[in-house]
Amino acid sequence: MSKNRLIYLPLGGAGEIGMNAYVYGYGAPGEERLIVVDLGVTFPDMDTTPGVNLILPDIGFLRDNAERIEAIFITHAHEDHVGAVGRLWPDLRAPVYARSFTGHLAQLKFEEAGQDPANVEIVGAWPERIEAGPFKVAFLPVSHSIPESAALVIDTPAGRIVHTGDFKLDTAPGVGEPWDEGLWREATKGRVRALVCDSTNVFSHHPGRSEAELKDPIRKLVAAAPHMVVATTFASNVARVKTLAEAGLAAGRSVCLLGRAMRRMVEVAEKTGVVDAFPHTITPEDARDLPRENLMLIVTGSQGERRAASAQLSRGKYLGLEMNEGDTFLFSSKTIPGNERGVIRTMNAFSEMGVDIVAEDDRYHVSGHANRPDLERVHALVNPECVIPMHGEHRHLREHAKLAEANGRVSLVVVNGAVCDLTGARPHIVEHVEAERVYLDGDILIGALDGVVRDRIRLALNGHVMVNVILEGNEALGEPWVETMGLPETGRSRAALVDVLEQDLGQFLMRAKARTLRDDAAVEDELVRITKKVTQDEIGRKPEVTVVVSRLEG
Amino acid sequence: MSKNRLIYLPLGGAGEIGMNAYVYGYGAPGEERLIVVDLGVTFPDMDTTPGVNLILPDIGFLRDNAERIEAIFITHAHEDHVGAVGRLWPDLRAPVYARSFTGHLAQLKFEEAGQDPANVEIVGAWPERIEAGPFKVAFLPVSHSIPESAALVIDTPAGRIVHTGDFKLDTAPGVGEPWDEGLWREATKGRVRALVCDSTNVFSHHPGRSEAELKDPIRKLVAAAPHMVVATTFASNVARVKTLAEAGLAAGRSVCLLGRAMRRMVEVAEKTGVVDAFPHTITPEDARDLPRENLMLIVTGSQGERRAASAQLSRGKYLGLEMNEGDTFLFSSKTIPGNERGVIRTMNAFSEMGVDIVAEDDRYHVSGHANRPDLERVHALVNPECVIPMHGEHRHLREHAKLAEANGRVSLVVVNGAVCDLTGARPHIVEHVEAERVYLDGDILIGALDGVVRDRIRLALNGHVMVNVILEGNEALGEPWVETMGLPETGRSRAALVDVLEQDLGQFLMRAKARTLRDDAAVEDELVRITKKVTQDEIGRKPEVTVVVSRLEG
Repeated sequence: MSKNRLIYLPLGGAGEIGMNAYVYGYGAPGEERLIVVDLGVTFPDMDTTPGVNLILPDIGFLRDNAERIEAIFITHAHEDHVGAVGRLWPDLRAPVYARSFTGHLAQLKFEEAGQDPANVEIVGAWPERIEAGPFKVAFLPVSHSIPESAALVIDTPAGRIVHTGDFKLDTAPGVGEPWDEGLWREATKGRVRALVCDSTNVFSHHPGRSEAELKDPIRKLVAAAPHMVVATTFASNVARVKTLAEAGLAAGRSVCLLGRAMRRMVEVAEKTGVVDAFPHTITPEDARDLPRENLMLIVTGSQGERRAASAQLSRGKYLGLEMNEGDTFLFSSKTIPGNERGVIRTMNAFSEMGVDIVAEDDRYHVSGHANRPDLERVHALVNPECVIPMHGEHRHLREHAKLAEANGRVSLVVVNGAVCDLTGARPHIVEHVEAERVYLDGDILIGALDGVVRDRIRLALNGHVMVNVILEGNEALGEPWVETMGLPETGRSRAALVDVLEQDLGQFLMRAKARTLRDDAAVEDELVRITKKVTQDEIGRKPEVTVVVSRLEG
Repeated sequence: MSKNRLIYLPLGGAGEIGMNAYVYGYGAPGEERLIVVDLGVTFPDMDTTPGVNLILPDIGFLRDNAERIEAIFITHAHEDHVGAVGRLWPDLRAPVYARSFTGHLAQLKFEEAGQDPANVEIVGAWPERIEAGPFKVAFLPVSHSIPESAALVIDTPAGRIVHTGDFKLDTAPGVGEPWDEGLWREATKGRVRALVCDSTNVFSHHPGRSEAELKDPIRKLVAAAPHMVVATTFASNVARVKTLAEAGLAAGRSVCLLGRAMRRMVEVAEKTGVVDAFPHTITPEDARDLPRENLMLIVTGSQGERRAASAQLSRGKYLGLEMNEGDTFLFSSKTIPGNERGVIRTMNAFSEMGVDIVAEDDRYHVSGHANRPDLERVHALVNPECVIPMHGEHRHLREHAKLAEANGRVSLVVVNGAVCDLTGARPHIVEHVEAERVYLDGDILIGALDGVVRDRIRLALNGHVMVNVILEGNEALGEPWVETMGLPETGRSRAALVDVLEQDLGQFLMRAKARTLRDDAAVEDELVRITKKVTQDEIGRKPEVTVVVSRLEG
């Protein structure tokens, strides 16, 4: 009864936009040979993950089955697809395959994680195929907001899967391969068992627009700007960076790239040949000496990130450059939901400097993802036996499945941790594996459910009271000592909160029975209780409380 | 040389959307008699104000000059205009004037703050005038997203000011007075020294739409829904709540209001006569017994607030009611920038339940603020000698000023704390007063710059290490004791972080010179330094550190 089966298991990316990690398996149940598609990160926020550096998928399932992994494939070089590969690789130790631009950036991830970049093998596009156990995998070029994005055509003994990666239908993306419907038709012809498909823009009802449409508007905007122009976009959108730089040069401006990611992306793009003739740029040192009206800066920080170049400029000088009254700042980007506060903070800081801000304007930005009608076009083109939505929050996946079903197709929402059997007549969930999140916290990986971050959130919401008492036998030695952090100094009684606490805790110790004072746990419980009650009475909140009872040998 | 002057001083609302508090003064410099317009709150967020309950304007200037305050006027009952009046009033003790609906809600604010609601005097609309020292003030009705919003026509010996409050140009708002151009023309005719004007929607380029446009689309949506319908909007938008309820009844559904604010707003609207014949509603208890397809809930929580009815429903049962597969949830609202995460969290939770979500759809929502062309219409109608933008972030104020100037008007951006002299030929800033923010933190008001909240943010970002040592004379008594909160348990050395810390701190104490050990401050400094260094080495982050040195009499 151990008939071979073909399974699909998202470990990240199916229930969020970010942190992509997908697994395919073929073989007897529980013994499937596995391939991994993408190992990305997502970014922390103050609401749910204060102090966390990065969020990675929980690959416990893969770690437990590492010997079954044949290969890892990276579709493109966005952080949410490649960002975790270096750090997670030591648990997987399978060969990593990617095309040239993506592979070079994956190799940098290996270097950053102290791993050998030679584990990343650079491969060619379709019709080249990589054999990985029962899988034969080809990288099928597709347009996206980063060069050299690829779908995967995955042939298995149980049929073919087309895994789109991130994509849009852009026949003139500027940099990177255009959408080539003929190529896709040829590469995906015949029976396709499943189309596993990007869902990001399923709520956008108009057909997607081309990167090429931006050239004229951006050129006009830059030409008309009276003083310095600063533009921001995702550094990885090399086509956009090039369009911006060309607009600067066309307006007689020297162009300077600011931000490490910006320079790195252009370097790797040039090195791997995905862009040729990137416009000449100058250094920040040289930029400082130029008249402002002859200058254009292209900077990181389109999402208002506090440490990026745009935010630094919004706070004052950055590398000797600064914004002035009458300068223009162009957000050639869209604010990702959740990043609004940071972006708005940056905008208002520029506004206070008298900078003219151009933002949230469709003339200067197009999305990198296929819109609803584009998705329908790809469904029709590939004509799969079923559509499995991926790369979306739950609402995107559900809407995408409804769209496919409305067109008479079979579809199923498969969320992180759900193992979907693609072998039978209809795809169906057969089991669930752990697929939480892992936090890079400082230098340490911790589980999302370990409680560490929950405690930090509690400290932020409630403040902290620390109580120290020294006991000797059945009496307290001296007074209790209280310190607070993150709490108002004085409360209702107009006395210092620590004084009120020390007094009330001291009274308890004075009056407590000898039996209580010989029992550390009982003393501790009572001190916590009194501390919470007094703090609630004084300032109206129940703090986190840490009590340390030190006992001298009596 | 103490010529009388007319001044305008925003203490909140000019540099943010929220926390409105404006001051006008007339008299000799430094001795102006004052009136206050609106006393609102703004809401905390985890990024900048974790654990804070509410944010209020810093009215230090008013407190210091309380005897100069003639009166307080409340334009309308939105929280960002009325929310702080009860809590701040004890420092001001001037009569509060408002129209009926607004005044009743202001009186509730007084009750909540333990103050006498009789301090709020209900007054009529223009042409009724309130004399307040050198000011004569009339409430001029205007349409907005809450009933009975009013502009103020403020006559002073130095000329007339028109203070718009929040407004839109809606000739069919459903509930509340329609925009009446004739009335405005009459009330604002003659010389107007300054138009102090709402800037919220200055970036919206199309003319505003009417509340009335929503009736048909909402009716159709509710009629077509197969199962239960739940709709959310701001409770204070009584017109919208009524439109939603009428759509429910028209579709043969019973309507139930969920959420305290929702019921309170409708009650006050009925009591004060701003709405007559509000549709019949049923209790949650009765709703539970009805077939789902005959039911419509109208709930609080359009901004994803964690404790509101919508979020409660997204987490499961609420008052015995719950959402099921095939139900419809309508956000008849727009997500305020910064609230995206909460709204999206709610949406995805509903999506997991199989609920069909309708959101961010212009057919089911219109804004309550005047758009750019509407602002130009009002500028032209009032034809003031200068336009002072208010009610906006800096970028809104600046854009509004540029708009006025582009039309040949005098305009000036006046931010919180800037005292603007309106007497001379051109408005100009003459001085600055403190105008920070005050936090309601638990039950206590604390200053934004007190450091309390900054410490909580540090705890959230860095975690906390507490170190205890007991000294006697020049030696340590026992080992140091370490507790941590919000930090990973084990680090690079694979030993428990607290053990590594206790060992290294213990070694320091053992080896320290007698002179050092007699100096509490020196011991403390060194313990902090070692704790940070060891924690950095072990887990890659520098925590907050609290050291308590207890000294026994030697």
